[in-house]
Amino acid sequence: MKFAIPFVLAVATAAASLPAAAQFAKPEDAVKYRQSALFIMSQHFGRIGAMVNGRVPYDAAAAVQNAEIVAEMSKLPWAGFGPGTDKVTPTRAKPEVWTEQAKFKEHNEKLVGETAKLLAAAKTNSLDNLKVAFGSTANTCKGCHDVYRKD
Amino acid sequence: MKFAIPFVLAVATAAASLPAAAQFAKPEDAVKYRQSALFIMSQHFGRIGAMVNGRVPYDAAAAVQNAEIVAEMSKLPWAGFGPGTDKVTPTRAKPEVWTEQAKFKEHNEKLVGETAKLLAAAKTNSLDNLKVAFGSTANTCKGCHDVYRKD
Repeated sequence: MKFAIPFVLAVATAAASLPAAAQFAKPEDAVKYRQSALFIMSQHFGRIGAMVNGRVPYDAAAAVQNAEIVAEMSKLPWAGFGPGTDKVTPTRAKPEVWTEQAKFKEHNEKLVGETAKLLAAAKTNSLDNLKVAFGSTANTCKGCHDVYRKD
Repeated sequence: MKFAIPFVLAVATAAASLPAAAQFAKPEDAVKYRQSALFIMSQHFGRIGAMVNGRVPYDAAAAVQNAEIVAEMSKLPWAGFGPGTDKVTPTRAKPEVWTEQAKFKEHNEKLVGETAKLLAAAKTNSLDNLKVAFGSTANTCKGCHDVYRKD
C-alpha cells in the first residue's frame, strides 16, 4: 500500500481522538456540515419543484435522480445540530432547536419519511404523483422552518 | 393537494427558467454546491481515515455507512465547476480547472471509480481491504488537489 502519508494523516486526524458520539472535530464543522447538506437538498428539491410547477419540462429520470439525492441528504443535517453547535454563527437556527430537541427530532424524522415518499412517487414516472409528494414534502420543510428557522 | 404556495414557488423559481444544462440559478450557488458536496465527502472520508489509522475502533457498519455517503458525494461536485463559476470567490479552485477541462474531468471520474471501490471494500468487512482502498482513494484526492487546488 503506497499512498501519501501526510495527506492521509491530515484526513484521519480531523475525526480523530473523539468519542464516537462527537462526529465533528469542532462545532464549526458541524454547522458547516448541516448547512451543506441542507443546501444540496434544497438545490435538488428545487429542480423537482421547477418540473412540478411547469417551469421546466417534466423529465421522469431527472426527477428520480434529484429525488434520490434529496432522500439521501434529508438524513444528514441533524447530526450537525448537536450540543455546543447552537453558539456558532452565522446560523438561522433558532434556540428552540436545542430547547425542544424531541420535537425537533420529530420534524427531522418526518422529513426523512416524506422524502422517501417523494422518491417513491418519482419512480412511478407520474407527474401527478410527483406533484402530490412534492407538495407534501414542501409542507414538511415549511413546517420545520416556521418554528426552528429565522427568516 | 394543499400546500403553502409561496414556499413552493420560492423553491421552484430557484431552478426555473434556465436551460437544462444550467442547473444553478446563479454562479454563487454552483460554487456553494460544489464546496458543500466536497465538505460532506471529506467529513465522512475522514471518519473512515480515523478507523484506518487506528484512532477510533474499526466499526464495519459505520465504515459502510460512511463509504456510501462518500461514494454518493463524489458524483456531485463537478456540476458546480461549470462555465462562469471560475470568477466566484472565495475559492481554492485553480484556473486550470477551466483551462484543462478534459483532464480535470478525468480526475473527477477517477474519484468516482475509487470511491465505488472504497464502498465495495467497506462491504467486505475487512479492515485490511478498507485500508488499501482508503489509501488509493486518498491518493486520488491528493492527485487532483495537487494540480487543481490552491494550498
